[in-house]
Amino acid sequence: MSGRQDIEDLIDLMARLPGLGPRSARRAVLHLIQKRGRLMQPLAHSMQMVADNARECVRCGNIGTGDLCDICADERRANGEICVVEDVSDLWAMERAGVFKGRYHVLGGTLSALDGIGPEDLRIPALVTRVGDEQVREVILALGATVDGQTTAHYIADELSGRCTVSSLAQGVPVGGELDYLDDGTITAALTARKSL
Amino acid sequence: MSGRQDIEDLIDLMARLPGLGPRSARRAVLHLIQKRGRLMQPLAHSMQMVADNARECVRCGNIGTGDLCDICADERRANGEICVVEDVSDLWAMERAGVFKGRYHVLGGTLSALDGIGPEDLRIPALVTRVGDEQVREVILALGATVDGQTTAHYIADELSGRCTVSSLAQGVPVGGELDYLDDGTITAALTARKSL
Ligand SMILES: [Zn+2]
Ligand SMILES: [Zn+2]
Repeated sequence: MSGRQDIEDLIDLMARLPGLGPRSARRAVLHLIQKRGRLMQPLAHSMQMVADNARECVRCGNIGTGDLCDICADERRANGEICVVEDVSDLWAMERAGVFKGRYHVLGGTLSALDGIGPEDLRIPALVTRVGDEQVREVILALGATVDGQTTAHYIADELSGRCTVSSLAQGVPVGGELDYLDDGTITAALTARKSL
Repeated sequence: MSGRQDIEDLIDLMARLPGLGPRSARRAVLHLIQKRGRLMQPLAHSMQMVADNARECVRCGNIGTGDLCDICADERRANGEICVVEDVSDLWAMERAGVFKGRYHVLGGTLSALDGIGPEDLRIPALVTRVGDEQVREVILALGATVDGQTTAHYIADELSGRCTVSSLAQGVPVGGELDYLDDGTITAALTARKSL
């Protein structure tokens, strides 16, 4: 009979989502309760299913439900190109643009002297291994136009020097901009105009 | 192995929450997946529990988990006062202010000639019945300071004329304002300075 507490607990959990504060979490929960058959039940079920099954691809770091993500499991994506991104959200942004046909490598962040993040904290050693194992012709660095993003790009270019072509997204990525916020056209333009490092 | 589709389905459902659009839903889902043990599993479980158990109180329209909500089930709240609100979110706002010690009646909206909403579409007949059954001394109308809110207040005051005292929240409710957006202090001031209609 602790109904009110169950609802308060749900509001507290919802308020921990990015983009929702305590007030909007409360409104969201009320909305859910009022549409509990048509929206809340399907949402709870969907969330439980993803929570039970989602995990990181052992090869590229993308989110999927098997050892390999959908992209790594798709042999048609083995075209000799790997696009390197910071986060899964950037991978999703690239996929929405729909212009890249190869595979990905999710670093999990950028190098940062300030935060003490070195190459071994990211998936950089795994990237070097993949370039050798997967007959990669070109690595395309799709990293943010931030200081840390560019530092990371140059570090990776050095590591891969002589092993394959290394290029980076060019025009279109605004200085200080994050990939996840770009529109599809900008991403397409930046990929098309990529330049060798 | 349709991992990507499960995640897209979850994003689509999340995007239907008030305050989240497609982009913020995507970020929220990614955040959940990255914290699936500490946040996503508890959230899915909490949401399922509320979805299975939450329902409207048969007496007042508040959300709870039994036939009667926590407030209607609490005999200490039977003090002869009923506070009438438009929506459950307004009831929650009143409870956060913590100043009202009686029970509630949730109308489920306001009268609206434009939208064709009449007394029988709201819980107004049930309110009249409660005033007779529950030895109610005073009905406090905590409706928004909108045209429809005030029309509804006057209609209810007429219906209850001669049966009990009818008052309404006074100073502090801004013109055109919605109760749910007020701070606790404003609600307290408005309740304390309530005036007889
Ligand atoms: Zn993968
Ligand atoms: Zn109740």
